Amino acid sequence: MGLALAEALLAQGHPLTVWNRTAAKADALVAKGAHRAASVADAVLASPLTITCLNDYDTMYQVFAGAEEALRGRALINLNSGTPTEAHAADEWATRTGFDYLDGAIMVPPPLVGTPGAVFLYSGPEGVFTTHRPTLASLGDPRFLGADPGRAVLYNTALLDLMYTSINGFLHAAALVGSAGVPAATFADLAVNWFLPTVVDATLLAQAEELDRSNYPGDLGSLEMNRTALEHITRTSVEQGVHVDLPRLAQQIAEQAIAEGHGDKNYFAVFEVLKKARAGA
Amino acid sequence: MGLALAEALLAQGHPLTVWNRTAAKADALVAKGAHRAASVADAVLASPLTITCLNDYDTMYQVFAGAEEALRGRALINLNSGTPTEAHAADEWATRTGFDYLDGAIMVPPPLVGTPGAVFLYSGPEGVFTTHRPTLASLGDPRFLGADPGRAVLYNTALLDLMYTSINGFLHAAALVGSAGVPAATFADLAVNWFLPTVVDATLLAQAEELDRSNYPGDLGSLEMNRTALEHITRTSVEQGVHVDLPRLAQQIAEQAIAEGHGDKNYFAVFEVLKKARAGA
Ligand SMILES: [Ca+2]
Ligand SMILES: [Ca+2]
Repeated sequence: MGLALAEALLAQGHPLTVWNRTAAKADALVAKGAHRAASVADAVLASPLTITCLNDYDTMYQVFAGAEEALRGRALINLNSGTPTEAHAADEWATRTGFDYLDGAIMVPPPLVGTPGAVFLYSGPEGVFTTHRPTLASLGDPRFLGADPGRAVLYNTALLDLMYTSINGFLHAAALVGSAGVPAATFADLAVNWFLPTVVDATLLAQAEELDRSNYPGDLGSLEMNRTALEHITRTSVEQGVHVDLPRLAQQIAEQAIAEGHGDKNYFAVFEVLKKARAGA
Repeated sequence: MGLALAEALLAQGHPLTVWNRTAAKADALVAKGAHRAASVADAVLASPLTITCLNDYDTMYQVFAGAEEALRGRALINLNSGTPTEAHAADEWATRTGFDYLDGAIMVPPPLVGTPGAVFLYSGPEGVFTTHRPTLASLGDPRFLGADPGRAVLYNTALLDLMYTSINGFLHAAALVGSAGVPAATFADLAVNWFLPTVVDATLLAQAEELDRSNYPGDLGSLEMNRTALEHITRTSVEQGVHVDLPRLAQQIAEQAIAEGHGDKNYFAVFEVLKKARAGA
């Protein structure tokens, strides 16, 4: 990913100084015009802005351990993933040390970095984002999520959560129809080209504001009815010999929402369950 | 739903005879020009095609118990939900009794019945579908899924499965960002208007044909890396105090796929796990 970021900056004509633990990894970038720094501190001192994308926050602290003095008065933008608590700690480290800090997250794979549709998420002091926005725009589409430095990593985690759940939902559904000989590609044409955008996404957008009001009117269908449908999906999964844990968990979540008094509300009332750590877990 | 179906047929000028266990429920339809039948057999005898949408298959058998002779030589299209086994049994009942049978599923809520984008799924003998297609087109967009009579209910179940899983994925992700004060509507704008169609759906469409080949090349990212990401989502869910069972189950499914030797393949290799009844379940 570091290579993709550096190449996008070079391609837009930014002066660039690079550092990598394994110096030879930067050879191709140096051939394209990047300067090679002999140390992290030298790399930091070469520019007003340092962009880092390492494995995790601990690695970041190790790498910059000898460069804190160099960072003072400059800016660091960190693109690795982590938890909001880790992002807050990094923000406190920056304040303590005396440099500007933004926490960010890259929402596309390396080959898409530098393309206009490549979304990058940032959070932290808005002034720091505004100052460096032109540079960040060379990496993709920079979206500012607010002053809370933990927000970019939290969004990143939530979107990956949504991605894995959505892929699992598709794969389980494809396994169900596949048990009767339907190719996944045939199912995808109906499920992804029609059902997801037309039915599911439209419902999510229509209900999102109601979620913020905890408003789940059941006049068009109740959670009790959805529970019956989920039991049916579980039973069909057993009957067709496919994995049953995903629909069974959805059924259990609906049952928990009903047990908490939401049976006559619509399906989105399960949000009340999902917002809380599971009782007894 | 029966009312919505009848109104769509009347709106397109089809001669219509209706029957309901509670006769008064048909009053509004009769006022709009429908004939009222005194019995199920009379309703069947009035037309070449009978369309039924009851709670389940058992209810259908009860309702048509005295009308089997009337059905002979005619056609019945059944739109209730059920399992493939139930649809196959209904198809055998039709063959034994001597009438044409199609099994169908309605993929939209009642208010959308009769609109052009309302998808209806059908399976069974193709000739029966072709004969009645013009009538069925008055209800929405009729899609024929093949001769296997169980396919429409199975598709229906799979799409609902996908719907509940997708909604849960969105709600859990919204709960994660909500734990830091982000409104669901704000998150939906990025997650549903950008991330789902641009990243997730595009990935599903790109991978669907590979699923049919059990081909999961891991050169752009391995299941081992995805497992780490899923552990991170689980850990963040705990840290933020939201429900943890959904990411934990996704993590377990990835771990099972790795245990089965797919660790160096890409994430879609979990399909191999989801296609099978869970070991020991
Ligand atoms: Ca970060
Ligand atoms: Ca049916």
